[in-house]
Amino acid sequence: MASFAHLLCNPVGSWAHLSTRSSSFLSPSFPFLPSSASAPSARRRRRPACAAMEVNAAASAAVPSAVEFNFKGYMLQKAAAVNRALDAAVPLAYPERIHEAMRYSLLGGGKRVRPVLCLAACEIVGGRERQAVPPASAVEMIHTMSLMHDDLPCMDNDDLRRGQPTCHRVFGEPVAVLAGDALLALAFGHLADPASYPADDPVPPARVVRAVAELSRCVGAEGLVAGQVVDLESTGLGTPVGLERLEFIHLHKTAALLEASVVTGAIVGGGSDDQIERLRRYARCVGLLFQVVDDILDGTKSSQELGKTAGKDLASDKTTYPKLMGLEKSREFAEELLKDATEQLLEFDPMKVAPLLHLADYIAHRQK
Amino acid sequence: MASFAHLLCNPVGSWAHLSTRSSSFLSPSFPFLPSSASAPSARRRRRPACAAMEVNAAASAAVPSAVEFNFKGYMLQKAAAVNRALDAAVPLAYPERIHEAMRYSLLGGGKRVRPVLCLAACEIVGGRERQAVPPASAVEMIHTMSLMHDDLPCMDNDDLRRGQPTCHRVFGEPVAVLAGDALLALAFGHLADPASYPADDPVPPARVVRAVAELSRCVGAEGLVAGQVVDLESTGLGTPVGLERLEFIHLHKTAALLEASVVTGAIVGGGSDDQIERLRRYARCVGLLFQVVDDILDGTKSSQELGKTAGKDLASDKTTYPKLMGLEKSREFAEELLKDATEQLLEFDPMKVAPLLHLADYIAHRQK
Repeated sequence: MASFAHLLCNPVGSWAHLSTRSSSFLSPSFPFLPSSASAPSARRRRRPACAAMEVNAAASAAVPSAVEFNFKGYMLQKAAAVNRALDAAVPLAYPERIHEAMRYSLLGGGKRVRPVLCLAACEIVGGRERQAVPPASAVEMIHTMSLMHDDLPCMDNDDLRRGQPTCHRVFGEPVAVLAGDALLALAFGHLADPASYPADDPVPPARVVRAVAELSRCVGAEGLVAGQVVDLESTGLGTPVGLERLEFIHLHKTAALLEASVVTGAIVGGGSDDQIERLRRYARCVGLLFQVVDDILDGTKSSQELGKTAGKDLASDKTTYPKLMGLEKSREFAEELLKDATEQLLEFDPMKVAPLLHLADYIAHRQK
Repeated sequence: MASFAHLLCNPVGSWAHLSTRSSSFLSPSFPFLPSSASAPSARRRRRPACAAMEVNAAASAAVPSAVEFNFKGYMLQKAAAVNRALDAAVPLAYPERIHEAMRYSLLGGGKRVRPVLCLAACEIVGGRERQAVPPASAVEMIHTMSLMHDDLPCMDNDDLRRGQPTCHRVFGEPVAVLAGDALLALAFGHLADPASYPADDPVPPARVVRAVAELSRCVGAEGLVAGQVVDLESTGLGTPVGLERLEFIHLHKTAALLEASVVTGAIVGGGSDDQIERLRRYARCVGLLFQVVDDILDGTKSSQELGKTAGKDLASDKTTYPKLMGLEKSREFAEELLKDATEQLLEFDPMKVAPLLHLADYIAHRQK
């Protein structure tokens, strides 16, 4: 199997002379993975800066080299750009109440991981970032609508989301249902509207059509909705679900929208079929990795460290990876997923892989 | 203003030698419109048969001429084709429960007026009907999802739909919400999937992109959802809404999806911008006509005649056209709408307008 070793002696994009991890967005330790896992991770983070990578001078003053990749700065800058696009995509038009509800949930915070994945995937295949702003906005609209409908009294009956009252608590259930529907419809319309794209940098219609089809598949009864339904069916049974079903739930409930994010970004950016499939596998690994780490955190961290109730999954009948395979095996599984995810990036331009490498690393290393 | 008079002396598509109304699908009388309105209507129904128009020999034996347009046969034949396409578009895959819920609501009956409008609009602009099967299926998926979400306990709390228990009564509320979401996503995916179209008769991607954008606009917060929200806000106020707001509700809640149906059909069929805009106006008139006639029926027919509780709107605080403008003015308004709708068809090939003319006529003449 390919490794990052060849990148270390790649004369075009040598990783060897670069600094170690710099961003405070990444934790300094890697508590869930055995020490062997940190070797490729450290190598991956050694890479040259390029025009597409944001270097925050203030942040970099405290770290060994100004040319290293400032992941936190990158995330913040891209999230701000996505927020501006989302704000413009849902103006406060008549009827105000539905637009207020859409904007309340859509613009109410969040790290914008999915849109950033979309922008990064577009650039990694050689596309221009601004071409990927419409699909990036679309995946965030769909992520938001899935949270709005998930929070409904008939579903999870949640009163709070990102520390704020949920949409149905503010606007009422009927408006929350309809605002979710409107965001789902808008996601596809925004993706298909030529006015969403820069006039001097349009995306060929064939790519847009393919992106619409991908987004639909990842969201519908073969994707996100499938994961939610199987999760619903598996809750309250009193017995743990098997590993296969657990993986199905996470691959659909979480990974599918990450997959839509990178795949639509790569499609509008003009990626080849091979590149698109590599990025699809990357996203699926990262999606599963997110859940495995989430399960490990729930069982190993205090509520104070997590900023939410720890041990919830352990106390409930919710099936987790540590429950099914034990903590050590779960850590090994996380290690494998991170390795698999990063290996999918080996064939890409090493000048452009930093955001996706760091995103995977961030998800593996996060402390909450 | 243009009239149908020129069609009467049009040597290519003369209407003059054809029979009067034949189909039992059309009532023999026109109770809501003054006698003057029936003149253009009668002329419109006089037209030659052509390959695209189904002639039911059995039905036509009882009527003056076998060459007249068999509207009932046309509707039944097209609805059967649409049902086959919908059945194939939503196979019973894993997870079965969500697919069962989608199929239960999607395949549980209905006249398929919207898909038939879509097929007819494709043909009227010179497209081939089979090119319009994907958008025709898409609009029916969206119509179904809007009914599923409308029926939810937090919305209209309906237990019955088309004489059967509503989706949430059979599958539970969470599955009904998710099945609606899945159908909405599938509508766009089905429209964008090249596999939905005949391999030997593909639709150019630019047309598909335009159809996706149109469908989204007609469904979201500028379309169907806007109508539902304003309707919600206008219910239970104790005072009637004004004419302008009533028209907004109907143009969005009812007409928008009819508009999406004909416009997406015309787009995939390769219609010109002028043709698309004429068909858009036709659909908006027909959508409003449907509601005006509905209001008139509610106030003038018995429960037995309607097959549902009559006078409901009259007894409730729901605003209707007769309440706002009186019965006679409402009939005149219906007449104007029918006339406006049919006038939009004047510039099209008279050999292909019969389905849309008859659909408008059917909506104006229906007795329940």
